[in-house]
Amino acid sequence: MATAHADFSFQVVATAGRARAGAFTTPHGVVETPAFMPVGTVGTVKALDPGELQAAGVEMLLANAYHLHLRPGADLIHALGGLHPFMGWSGPILTDSGGFQVFSLETLRTLDEDGVEFSSHVDGSRHRFTPESVIQLERRLGGDVIMQLDHVVPGRASHTAARDAAERSIRWLERCRSAFEKTDGDRPGTPQALFPIVQGGIHADLREASAAAITALGEWPGFGVGGLSVGEAKPEMYAMIDVVDAVLPQSRPRYLMGVGFPDDLLAGIQRGIDLFDCVAPTRMGRNGTAFTSAGRLNIRRAELRNDPGPIDPQCSCSTCARFSRAYIRHLFAADEMLGPRLLSLHNVHFLTSLARAARTAILAGQPLEPVSEQHAEIDPERRVGA
Amino acid sequence: MATAHADFSFQVVATAGRARAGAFTTPHGVVETPAFMPVGTVGTVKALDPGELQAAGVEMLLANAYHLHLRPGADLIHALGGLHPFMGWSGPILTDSGGFQVFSLETLRTLDEDGVEFSSHVDGSRHRFTPESVIQLERRLGGDVIMQLDHVVPGRASHTAARDAAERSIRWLERCRSAFEKTDGDRPGTPQALFPIVQGGIHADLREASAAAITALGEWPGFGVGGLSVGEAKPEMYAMIDVVDAVLPQSRPRYLMGVGFPDDLLAGIQRGIDLFDCVAPTRMGRNGTAFTSAGRLNIRRAELRNDPGPIDPQCSCSTCARFSRAYIRHLFAADEMLGPRLLSLHNVHFLTSLARAARTAILAGQPLEPVSEQHAEIDPERRVGA
Repeated sequence: MATAHADFSFQVVATAGRARAGAFTTPHGVVETPAFMPVGTVGTVKALDPGELQAAGVEMLLANAYHLHLRPGADLIHALGGLHPFMGWSGPILTDSGGFQVFSLETLRTLDEDGVEFSSHVDGSRHRFTPESVIQLERRLGGDVIMQLDHVVPGRASHTAARDAAERSIRWLERCRSAFEKTDGDRPGTPQALFPIVQGGIHADLREASAAAITALGEWPGFGVGGLSVGEAKPEMYAMIDVVDAVLPQSRPRYLMGVGFPDDLLAGIQRGIDLFDCVAPTRMGRNGTAFTSAGRLNIRRAELRNDPGPIDPQCSCSTCARFSRAYIRHLFAADEMLGPRLLSLHNVHFLTSLARAARTAILAGQPLEPVSEQHAEIDPERRVGA
Repeated sequence: MATAHADFSFQVVATAGRARAGAFTTPHGVVETPAFMPVGTVGTVKALDPGELQAAGVEMLLANAYHLHLRPGADLIHALGGLHPFMGWSGPILTDSGGFQVFSLETLRTLDEDGVEFSSHVDGSRHRFTPESVIQLERRLGGDVIMQLDHVVPGRASHTAARDAAERSIRWLERCRSAFEKTDGDRPGTPQALFPIVQGGIHADLREASAAAITALGEWPGFGVGGLSVGEAKPEMYAMIDVVDAVLPQSRPRYLMGVGFPDDLLAGIQRGIDLFDCVAPTRMGRNGTAFTSAGRLNIRRAELRNDPGPIDPQCSCSTCARFSRAYIRHLFAADEMLGPRLLSLHNVHFLTSLARAARTAILAGQPLEPVSEQHAEIDPERRVGA
């Protein structure tokens, strides 16, 4: 086995159907799975601080190598001891590679077999990413898990385009692995693990071939499943997870990239996924939308003006323990920073709790509770005079 | 004595020259003085949450009746139990009356003997404030200390203009007191204390007459000193505090309104002031400037790009305990909300600590440590490679 990952291990503690409760051990601690990881794109989970994240049940979080390369640069973060001390986060960190930006910044990049060239969305400067340069970048950032550079195509991409990207992603994986083995000395801290990424668009044969090609290359400490939640229909996404689940080894964690709406999280868990990330909880929180046990709640709604209850009566987060819907609505109306903070925190807690509840159910051999993605009903009885 | 304030008391524990260490007891707890109060204009100290404020040493904070009247309205806050539960702050709260907005929103208001009429800076709607309506407003908000409606003039106002405003403020105080006595039933919670405000611009005779007129009206649970730090020179401000200190009773807390830059805070303490408030720590924090023991630090400075040290090596706040200058500079460069949060928190902690250190010195009979308002020197030796 070429890829060293003695410092990483994964234990499946219990299963319920294809759902798994596990423990992913990293040099920065154990992540109980299934787990939701919030996204700290440029080295900060927007509006939140590390202490709050920990209190909200976060065990592992994400950062993005593409964005950190642009600002403040990997050399600076390396000189400061790596991402963990830089961000003030002592738990495990995963860095994505820039492969998602191949998709999301399509108009700002050109791609060939060697790699990708981006025009910075910050200042227009040109930046070339190759499998080798990305691995060096992620080495220097010092995340626990680092993702290969991959070629992500839109959800509706043709079979031909998806095959081309999936096959290129496999070739890039080999180059990433080779670079990974040569650059161990570049890391600022503890050992790192390289995760491959299964691609193939919404085409079952391509997904199957991609997963098989990756496993044929040797052992891996875990697997990314990428290129989903990028415009395809939900049944198509779920079908792709089914296909990949059947091919990947059960003994390693599976990370469904960029997926984290409540219903998708549960659908992924039921299909053998262990790790999730998504910007939705923080982005929606900043925009005034809360996930709740009764569905989504737009905090700006006029009916909430005099609602003394918490965002979600079933929630135990520090936002719901302390503040009313009426107060948070006022913060948004007055454009006060505390509003986005409190809703982002609640939403992150909601998703970590959803994953935690699923784990508890799996351990107990009970079915997963369904979750509503409807708009929450508001109880008019609850409102106070005024 | 007409003004009931049995639930409020003030004890001078020690003095050093004219500086006092005291304890101001309110229905929501004891404030050890001298104390700095951060400003939560619309019911939130910008970017910070109540738990952070408490951890930063805040014992009492401010809210603004003018702003809360516009958004979300005093009736709503009253229906939700008053400001304390609304903001999630269980310590003492002081509400200012709108008198400062007579000065700061001069172009948006007209004033006559009866009161002030404002055009809302939010939506242009018209709002009339009289001594009576302001007291009813502050009653319903439920702050522990509520300030009279006063007439604030610019620091350079003529003797005639300053006298007119100071005398009107005394007449308004009598109307405020009368309204205060009639509206006890309007408060949502515990008893409240009405503070008068000494005016008089930068004219010693007017300040002296204002303070004497207020004390001649009866006993008060405490005194505001207003209309300073509004454009006058610092020596003029300090001279006015000297005048007022000599007239006001030693047995009550004195609150220097809107003053809270580090050097002014110390100058006020040395002249017998007990309570301070200022938006500077949060406003400057949002804009990227930190107070430090070595002077002010603009976090955006290029030299801080690779500075691994804390904002202030002598600071014990949770920002300085966890994050480097380099990281916070990066947060500002990337326009991330955590940057303003961390600097606001540091700056509030800096001022509460300054007041606390002054208290310790007074108790020990030692001189107050001077504080620098210069720009801090940056040690180039400290920077790391990159």
